[in-house]
Amino acid sequence: MSTATPAYEQLASTWTRLHNLEHLQAIAGWDHAANMPPKGNEARAAALAEMAALLHRMRTDPNLGHGLQCAEQEPLSEEQRANLREMQRQWQAATALPESLVQRQQIVTSRCEHAWRQQRPANDWAGFAPQLKEVLALAREEAQLLADKSGLRPYDALMDRFEPGMRCTQVDQVFGDVRRWLPGLIQQVIAKQAQEDVILPVGPFAIEKQRALCEQVIRLLGFDFEAGRLDVSTHPFCGGVPEDVRLTTRFRDDEFITSLMGTIHETGHGRYEQNLPREWLGQPMAQARSMALHESQSLSFEMQLGSHPGFVARLAPMVTATFGAQPAFTPQNLHRLITRVKPGFIRVDADEVTYPAHVILRYEIEKALIEGEVEVDDIPALWDAKMMELLGVDTRGNFKDGAMQDVHWPSGLFGYFPCYSLGAMYAAQWFATMRRQMPDLDARIGAGDLAPVFDWLRDNIWTQASRWTTDELARRASGEPLNAAHFKAHLETRYLG
Amino acid sequence: MSTATPAYEQLASTWTRLHNLEHLQAIAGWDHAANMPPKGNEARAAALAEMAALLHRMRTDPNLGHGLQCAEQEPLSEEQRANLREMQRQWQAATALPESLVQRQQIVTSRCEHAWRQQRPANDWAGFAPQLKEVLALAREEAQLLADKSGLRPYDALMDRFEPGMRCTQVDQVFGDVRRWLPGLIQQVIAKQAQEDVILPVGPFAIEKQRALCEQVIRLLGFDFEAGRLDVSTHPFCGGVPEDVRLTTRFRDDEFITSLMGTIHETGHGRYEQNLPREWLGQPMAQARSMALHESQSLSFEMQLGSHPGFVARLAPMVTATFGAQPAFTPQNLHRLITRVKPGFIRVDADEVTYPAHVILRYEIEKALIEGEVEVDDIPALWDAKMMELLGVDTRGNFKDGAMQDVHWPSGLFGYFPCYSLGAMYAAQWFATMRRQMPDLDARIGAGDLAPVFDWLRDNIWTQASRWTTDELARRASGEPLNAAHFKAHLETRYLG
Ligand SMILES: [Zn+2]
Ligand SMILES: [Zn+2]
Repeated sequence: MSTATPAYEQLASTWTRLHNLEHLQAIAGWDHAANMPPKGNEARAAALAEMAALLHRMRTDPNLGHGLQCAEQEPLSEEQRANLREMQRQWQAATALPESLVQRQQIVTSRCEHAWRQQRPANDWAGFAPQLKEVLALAREEAQLLADKSGLRPYDALMDRFEPGMRCTQVDQVFGDVRRWLPGLIQQVIAKQAQEDVILPVGPFAIEKQRALCEQVIRLLGFDFEAGRLDVSTHPFCGGVPEDVRLTTRFRDDEFITSLMGTIHETGHGRYEQNLPREWLGQPMAQARSMALHESQSLSFEMQLGSHPGFVARLAPMVTATFGAQPAFTPQNLHRLITRVKPGFIRVDADEVTYPAHVILRYEIEKALIEGEVEVDDIPALWDAKMMELLGVDTRGNFKDGAMQDVHWPSGLFGYFPCYSLGAMYAAQWFATMRRQMPDLDARIGAGDLAPVFDWLRDNIWTQASRWTTDELARRASGEPLNAAHFKAHLETRYLG
Repeated sequence: MSTATPAYEQLASTWTRLHNLEHLQAIAGWDHAANMPPKGNEARAAALAEMAALLHRMRTDPNLGHGLQCAEQEPLSEEQRANLREMQRQWQAATALPESLVQRQQIVTSRCEHAWRQQRPANDWAGFAPQLKEVLALAREEAQLLADKSGLRPYDALMDRFEPGMRCTQVDQVFGDVRRWLPGLIQQVIAKQAQEDVILPVGPFAIEKQRALCEQVIRLLGFDFEAGRLDVSTHPFCGGVPEDVRLTTRFRDDEFITSLMGTIHETGHGRYEQNLPREWLGQPMAQARSMALHESQSLSFEMQLGSHPGFVARLAPMVTATFGAQPAFTPQNLHRLITRVKPGFIRVDADEVTYPAHVILRYEIEKALIEGEVEVDDIPALWDAKMMELLGVDTRGNFKDGAMQDVHWPSGLFGYFPCYSLGAMYAAQWFATMRRQMPDLDARIGAGDLAPVFDWLRDNIWTQASRWTTDELARRASGEPLNAAHFKAHLETRYLG
């Protein structure tokens, strides 16, 4: 190879190999959720474990560490240097933990998660707590190791895996602010909506019709079906690879709005993936920036655009054409259905307004857990108190719809929850920027012209991938780093305006 | 590892790793055919090529060769020794060819196959021939290398990759015999069937109804839908892994019998895979014995059982229940439709009686090509002469429905064609054995009792996998090695009886 950057070239080719093998892992993972018959489970698990081990060996190969050092000295372009920065970040993440800890975590989390699947429906907190303690002990060990290496606080070190650069000091400030105004806002919205009549749609809604409607809406939202699919899985997700994005949803025949809005959500994830920079695909720089940024795209689609009264007015005739005319299908009533606010137990069922309360509660508890300020046995009381305080909901004794509702903790995922609400805030910030740059944005959305939205997201977010740090990306896109004021303004305009 | 067979254990664990990675390859391959949107093609090809290269490195690792030698000296059980024999066979196949030849073959065959996809519909023999010459030159080089290593004749060496132990001397004798009686038999059958009235079904046949009928028949045939699926692809096949078998078919709404019988065919492949010995899965000994043996299972299902008048009598009411009553759906008429004999151009559309003619013709030409007795330019004249001689069909100038109809030669697959007809012969031999052992077999099939057939195939073929050589397997199952007399008797009984 005749090049002035031999070490860099070598690294790039290793990442291309990883990309190729991760492709097979991603497709098999999607197939597992969307297609696989039950008896295929054991062999699939063995195959995926084999691939995970192989990828882990490749990602922790000591030659990579040496190559990263050599490449530092090479005359790289600005883009190559950004790519090298992301390679180093991935290398540090891959090599941060001793093999023995990773293995113990796999055993303990898979045991806890497996037991949780039975314990949750049985509301069995007493059975669950001892296993969660084991998971937490290892998560603390992990956090401390990562903290020692990086100089970050333990919880920051965990969060940094999902949201590089985000720190508790910033989250505390942002969530602390939301915490002050959210309960009052929720009460105001509920009072306002209590004055409004809402007509419920009358089912059943045939699955095949729902599927056709979803596909029609996904097309309208610009998803490229030549480079992706929509299928069904128990837990909807956006999987596959950037070159072949696999969206999933689920249908029930007594209700169609949840599935439709969920599909719009996944379409946002999907368009981000489909529009990552093609010429860089395979390299870390071409990967989505972070989990909050990813969620900022799904929520740009679901909440900012999909729940926009102008967009819902476009949706209404499609709904009527699909299921036949109903009084519930007027644009105004459909918009009321989609933006209905109601405090509840379950995060994944929460509306746009109450959702942050679920996230703030989890963030406060898991941060305190990781930093050793509280213990697993303290969770139920904390949960009950915070749910009452934030949402006025009584969760006492209801563990299955309380701290046992999410898979995150049993599977050892600490530091992830904040991304959901940070994503909602970034999404509001993107749309505030669009409105500043295009004062007629809402009118154009109402007229069915979605191109300005897609063009802006493509230019400012999708094609930028991981070229910049998150703060720099936000600054270039919107002139400022994360600013939660836009989220508050969005909720006030939409729900109290 | 405390064991008296350390080298063997090491080999077994390598093959388990191969099995795990091949699982991902198989699922991605199935997905490619059944699901993948067009723009996913390039990334998928890169991912599959990466995996093929990785598997090739593992299969040709020099440590394997050393391990195989060491394991020879270890105190192995009879089953372990059979497994070691199959490991050695696979190792020899993997290491037989120099890397450079394999790479040249990949380039040349993929170029020829790609061009063929345009040239075939254009009937462009002149454009196709030069590329096929390149493919043939490399196939001859491969055959000579394999022959030098194994001491086999060049064509035998190619055929041995698909049908271990089968030799031209035996195929010449078997096919030579068929060649003598087949043209006369075809004429007799045509004359007999000319006396019979056949009522054609009247379409359209809704795809969803066809799918439901196929699934019902697959279930009746014992396929385990908890460990497999039925989907749609352009070219039907049986893919996936033994633990999760993926059948495919294709539907057109003006005709349902082709798809139904094709699905029954793939179900035979699928039940073989689903019933390979579970405790040995991952090891070579647990793999299907050979291509002819595999085809003997699909043809046991499609031809021996699926076209059996007793089975068709069971099918008839299911067809009526699916599409509504039609005069064509009586058991007798349905059987006539399924067993209709008509010489034609296309192998894959051929009926059970004329099919061997297509295979014999290809075998005679490709053997002569590989052994240097004829050249690519001789193919059209040979094809025309043999088609006229065997089937009385005039193919002059019709290259696209002649020598250009199959993907095998453009993709470098020489030595495979005989397996199709050897499979038909083995299938007839299995059913002759069953009838000998269970004189009431036909009555039981007519009464809907298929268990005797499945039990016999499971005990004698499926669970035996690669434990024995093919000859030994046939001898244990039926008391004799391949005997084509059973095939002749089967055709005479069914078509002239
Ligand atoms: Zn999401
Ligand atoms: Zn077959």
